[in-house]
Amino acid sequence: MTTPAKGYAAQSADSKLAPFSFERRDPQPNDVAIDIRYCGVCHSDLHTARSEWPGTLYPCVPGHEIVGTVTAVGSDVTRFVVGDTVGVGCMVDSCGECPSCHDGEEQYCTGTGFVGTYNGPDPVMGGHTFGGYSDHIVVDQDFVLKIRHDEADLAAVAPLLCAGITTYSPLKHWGVGPGQKVGIVGLGGLGHMGVKIAAAMGAEVYVFSTSPNKRDDAIRLGAKDLIVSKDADAMGAHAGSFDFILNTVAASHDLDQFLALLKRDGTMTLVGVPETPHPSPSVGNLVFGRRSLAGSLIGGIAETQEMLDFCNKHGLTADIEIIDMAEIETGFDRMAKSDVKYRFVIDMATLG
Amino acid sequence: MTTPAKGYAAQSADSKLAPFSFERRDPQPNDVAIDIRYCGVCHSDLHTARSEWPGTLYPCVPGHEIVGTVTAVGSDVTRFVVGDTVGVGCMVDSCGECPSCHDGEEQYCTGTGFVGTYNGPDPVMGGHTFGGYSDHIVVDQDFVLKIRHDEADLAAVAPLLCAGITTYSPLKHWGVGPGQKVGIVGLGGLGHMGVKIAAAMGAEVYVFSTSPNKRDDAIRLGAKDLIVSKDADAMGAHAGSFDFILNTVAASHDLDQFLALLKRDGTMTLVGVPETPHPSPSVGNLVFGRRSLAGSLIGGIAETQEMLDFCNKHGLTADIEIIDMAEIETGFDRMAKSDVKYRFVIDMATLG
Repeated sequence: MTTPAKGYAAQSADSKLAPFSFERRDPQPNDVAIDIRYCGVCHSDLHTARSEWPGTLYPCVPGHEIVGTVTAVGSDVTRFVVGDTVGVGCMVDSCGECPSCHDGEEQYCTGTGFVGTYNGPDPVMGGHTFGGYSDHIVVDQDFVLKIRHDEADLAAVAPLLCAGITTYSPLKHWGVGPGQKVGIVGLGGLGHMGVKIAAAMGAEVYVFSTSPNKRDDAIRLGAKDLIVSKDADAMGAHAGSFDFILNTVAASHDLDQFLALLKRDGTMTLVGVPETPHPSPSVGNLVFGRRSLAGSLIGGIAETQEMLDFCNKHGLTADIEIIDMAEIETGFDRMAKSDVKYRFVIDMATLG
Repeated sequence: MTTPAKGYAAQSADSKLAPFSFERRDPQPNDVAIDIRYCGVCHSDLHTARSEWPGTLYPCVPGHEIVGTVTAVGSDVTRFVVGDTVGVGCMVDSCGECPSCHDGEEQYCTGTGFVGTYNGPDPVMGGHTFGGYSDHIVVDQDFVLKIRHDEADLAAVAPLLCAGITTYSPLKHWGVGPGQKVGIVGLGGLGHMGVKIAAAMGAEVYVFSTSPNKRDDAIRLGAKDLIVSKDADAMGAHAGSFDFILNTVAASHDLDQFLALLKRDGTMTLVGVPETPHPSPSVGNLVFGRRSLAGSLIGGIAETQEMLDFCNKHGLTADIEIIDMAEIETGFDRMAKSDVKYRFVIDMATLG
């Protein structure tokens, strides 16, 4: 009832990712079997593989920005047929019964918690789940997305499954649209998608970055300008003017400099969790302006489909650099130094 | 064009409040002159008089929970006549032109900033404003509220002008109502009004307090129960269950214990600004539940009138202890020790 699978795994926190053979379940009645064509490289992959976050289970096969082709479907699968181009993101299961699952917000599942595409408790095979750095994957149809982008764009679609939805969901939830001034803090894998999506939603977008040399890129991606966050005068000129700020920077930093730029009733939403806490934000910045500091986690499955369709309609994909599977450690090292514009994607044909 | 006024003032940070004579302007065309009958004693009065906050201007006549009787009106005043019972809260003026003023949110005025009832820049007389610890006050009609409560309730209405609106405004803004579970952190002058108002709005209300001996009072005020915030088991039993939490505690404290009790998409709103920062709140509590940490400042003038009418309709006033003007220092000292249930109100007839 299982099929041999090939992938790349870390065997411990300090071992490099290397070829790894394991078993995937054969499709159950609700399952879709997918040959993986591309898998994006997310910072979470690195954090997990190298145990920079607690709780990594080894062997660890990372990868949750998956695009592939359906090769088999279970007897109860109605929404997919063999040959479909599909995606899988950060989740492969959830309880299905709690209020969050009921509302299509599976990422906030309060029953079992959602099952991560890797490093989660495998609900069928036991043990833990193995992600997209592999030749194929078998996923419940309820966690499989339809990809409608052109064939030529598929590699650049892969990062939408995490970086895309992580930015789309809060932008949508907090009502970003025409007539609004929106800030994106950080221009990395998440931030560059945030700029593209917020601009496509019709907002006037500004990038906050410590690097003035990213200005041209910010504008090319759809921003009106880049504001150098270390420049107090430049920041002060925008005081009290932003409707919404999406903060994609996970490293500990001063939140007040951004909160002070929000209008009355504005919100800054964090999508990264720092290893060490941010300096405690000023309560005055919240009280004297009825501002909010919020958080957001990826997005629900229905919303992920909506995001994919939105991106297809607006011609949006990620800016990527394609790498071979064997280059993953170099990719990790470069990503750790922010030396990528803006996402590595593994061509899974190179898995061999 | 001025009239002598009597009040109680602090002459410096370490001098006690004592009788003080000064001048009030005579009513301008838009002004209402008010004989002050009662003035509530707010923690801000103490902080300002004793320079516990920066920026106190001396002599300092505190007081911004004012109830009185109209004695004269300017030629352009249309909404008030001599003999009306009226209130004045924390503000006596604002720019009138900025987006916040335009939206009736004068407390967030971004033009001149609102003019505080005391310690603000006096727009007519120059110098700084003198508050309600005095025999009379002259205020622009746009910052005067109608009081419709019964005569016998007037002393207990005074605290509504600050404690009432400071709690009503966020409860209203975040949509508190029937079917919701709402927490009130702290059972003092603000908190006891928060309980009454949230209960009158139809919510199921819980008080968070470090003092289990406040339980009977919490229930009498309208709460379903009191949760002892130091009791981790009691707190844990409510994890992820609150729609909204109003946090009235200004002292630095652990916010995470309350944020963890919010449902997905829940908000905790702070209405107190601590002297030293709260421990930095966990970003995980925000991200893994799309929760918000917000702030709120008093309320607008139109909303203050709405609050007064809401309280009148629901028979709500503050629980008070009436004191003589000469007892104010004892009142301050007891308030600093939270030894008041729940608000001192000065009977201004005792000013002599």
